Amino acid sequence: MPAIKPERLLADLQRLRQFGAVGHGVVRPALSAIDIESRNWLRERMQAAGLHAVIDGIGTVFGRSTRPGPALIIGSHTDTQPEGGWLDGAMGVMYGLEVARAFADSEDCAEFAVDVASWMDEEGRFAHFIGSRAFFDVLADSEFASARAPDGESLSAALARAAYAGRERSRFEPGRQRAYLEAHVEQGGRLEAEGLRIGVVTAIVGIRAFRIGFSGEQNHAGTTPMAVRRDAAMALIRFAHALDTRFAALAAPDTVWTFGNITVAPGAESIVPGNAELLVQFRDGDAHVLDRFEAGLRECVAAARGAVAVSVLEKMTDVAPAAMDPALQTLIAAAAERRAPGQWMHMPSGAGHDAQVTAAFVPSGMLFVPSIGGVSHSFAEDTDTDDIVLGCQVLADAAEAFLRALR
Amino acid sequence: MPAIKPERLLADLQRLRQFGAVGHGVVRPALSAIDIESRNWLRERMQAAGLHAVIDGIGTVFGRSTRPGPALIIGSHTDTQPEGGWLDGAMGVMYGLEVARAFADSEDCAEFAVDVASWMDEEGRFAHFIGSRAFFDVLADSEFASARAPDGESLSAALARAAYAGRERSRFEPGRQRAYLEAHVEQGGRLEAEGLRIGVVTAIVGIRAFRIGFSGEQNHAGTTPMAVRRDAAMALIRFAHALDTRFAALAAPDTVWTFGNITVAPGAESIVPGNAELLVQFRDGDAHVLDRFEAGLRECVAAARGAVAVSVLEKMTDVAPAAMDPALQTLIAAAAERRAPGQWMHMPSGAGHDAQVTAAFVPSGMLFVPSIGGVSHSFAEDTDTDDIVLGCQVLADAAEAFLRALR
Repeated sequence: MPAIKPERLLADLQRLRQFGAVGHGVVRPALSAIDIESRNWLRERMQAAGLHAVIDGIGTVFGRSTRPGPALIIGSHTDTQPEGGWLDGAMGVMYGLEVARAFADSEDCAEFAVDVASWMDEEGRFAHFIGSRAFFDVLADSEFASARAPDGESLSAALARAAYAGRERSRFEPGRQRAYLEAHVEQGGRLEAEGLRIGVVTAIVGIRAFRIGFSGEQNHAGTTPMAVRRDAAMALIRFAHALDTRFAALAAPDTVWTFGNITVAPGAESIVPGNAELLVQFRDGDAHVLDRFEAGLRECVAAARGAVAVSVLEKMTDVAPAAMDPALQTLIAAAAERRAPGQWMHMPSGAGHDAQVTAAFVPSGMLFVPSIGGVSHSFAEDTDTDDIVLGCQVLADAAEAFLRALR
Repeated sequence: MPAIKPERLLADLQRLRQFGAVGHGVVRPALSAIDIESRNWLRERMQAAGLHAVIDGIGTVFGRSTRPGPALIIGSHTDTQPEGGWLDGAMGVMYGLEVARAFADSEDCAEFAVDVASWMDEEGRFAHFIGSRAFFDVLADSEFASARAPDGESLSAALARAAYAGRERSRFEPGRQRAYLEAHVEQGGRLEAEGLRIGVVTAIVGIRAFRIGFSGEQNHAGTTPMAVRRDAAMALIRFAHALDTRFAALAAPDTVWTFGNITVAPGAESIVPGNAELLVQFRDGDAHVLDRFEAGLRECVAAARGAVAVSVLEKMTDVAPAAMDPALQTLIAAAAERRAPGQWMHMPSGAGHDAQVTAAFVPSGMLFVPSIGGVSHSFAEDTDTDDIVLGCQVLADAAEAFLRALR
């Protein structure tokens, strides 16, 4: 059995945290100067662990095992949100490094091959999942060419500035790399609420989002009788209320829906609004549920009666759900049950991860550790040290079981 | 019977329109250079009609009849919205001038006293109803001192610039001035919708407005299960829907209510909103109805259950309704029936007018002529010429009947 070394794992996590540390949190956006610095450090740590490590042409730090395979990739990301938590992504990468070291230290796992990846730009400063998509050759040249950071710098200019441009890109090796594992902080409060310590991810949810428009007639709020109004705000309220009721009836246990923004024009006390917009997003791990919600939404739009025109202005987001591999779920669950009996659960991931890219090409699995207070994308994000250590050991056990079964 | 002269009325209206004409509309905000120019012209026209006319210390153009009385004041305003219609206010002032001239021309009304007023700043560039409030001595010194235009100029500086500062203010003469009449374009579409030509105003509506706040918890729209959300936007939608239903049950026939603005923070697709605000306004001519609505609103706030705190953040507006004098309504209705049989109706004024100030001090009456398409506060505002002429004759008849009864 591989035994991870908690002190070594935590020391590396704390060292990585120093790159861009701001109070309790971290500011290390993809291809910022501090991110580039951290990648050099990470490559050296991988090299020191015996991996053949490179920062490739897209900026992904890839530590390839010198073992022939069959191999397992363990990865996540080390870039952060503009105001990020210290574990979001970083923990998953450090787990990969520690599992590779634990295998190397272990008599009966020393020949097992673990590749470790820190994928470029998971957080989407230039575009989401650039590194993992490039690895599987599904990053379109046109998207690469047009990707820009909020400050206007293009991805290619940033890669040139980092001296990564022109380098070879790491590529998926289908015969050798047999699975992908990713660990992450939950970024929600379910594990904490249930008093559990490990989440075995069943699927990464799909996301669809729509802008709904309400077009009425702007009028004087004093001189326009109720009967002749074409009030866009009132139409929005009635529609949104009906849609929420409809969604509640259509929902699966883990479906979530959010009306993230409402705008009313012109937005003055004494003017009957002529126009309004509603932003509708829903997420579920099952595409059939997403289809059901979208059909319900479109039926509500079609059923909207009255003097205000209701229409779908734009489908803003359409991300397919990604199911995690059932066999990997079973291995993770077994490891969790061994290390923390009764303290784990199956759950979907409500947030996006590189594993939703990998899942289309290679069996993929994810595990979560609890986020304290459910907080993420915030300097305040944190996880109990015991949970950080536990998650890494569970991941190491699952990785060992997977590779041993291929022997 | 006084006979108004349509050509004279329309010629003066068109001349006044030239001051600040922009396309079909007019830009003549209170105490702008063009407004000052127009006041000089108006004073001369009043003087030419035999009135003793002044531009007073607050900028009101007041043409006092040289007759001892009993007198009637006919007035409105000649300042406009930043993008105003050509008849809004201007028509009512020109009606007063024409009625004064028609009386002077008429053998049996020549001794009747009509004072004509163009009240300063009805539209509230500095503050609403400045002229009429100063006339009745209810413009507080503190409000006078703090009143500023959107460009930052104080009212006192603007009056000094116009050379009005230091002049005497016209004052209400209780024994002599026995009533106030004001004619105005409807600024709504009820007369047009009913196919009618004259509105006899029953009351100028009172207005109350409130900002309602919703305070929940901002969260990740993917990782926060529905059951634990404190979603401010969803709470707002449920509250607004319930409030609209409640208001519909509480409404009198002419009550109007408007949710003029909705804001959601932070307003992003993937974030459960932590805060939201709803702007609620309602209007009615009856204070009891306003009380009923306010009580209903406060009950809905108190009844709001769930994890999002709902509260009244601010009472933004509280204007009392002003009933028009029943005897004056009867005189206007009788004149309307004589000049346009069956083509008039009683109705409230949904918009504010100087008559809501005068009504507290002197019997006040208003008549409306139709607004084409219900349009107002817009360059496109207009009224059929025949209706403009009819309204003036009806006003003249009502004025004659009122003054004759006092003989």
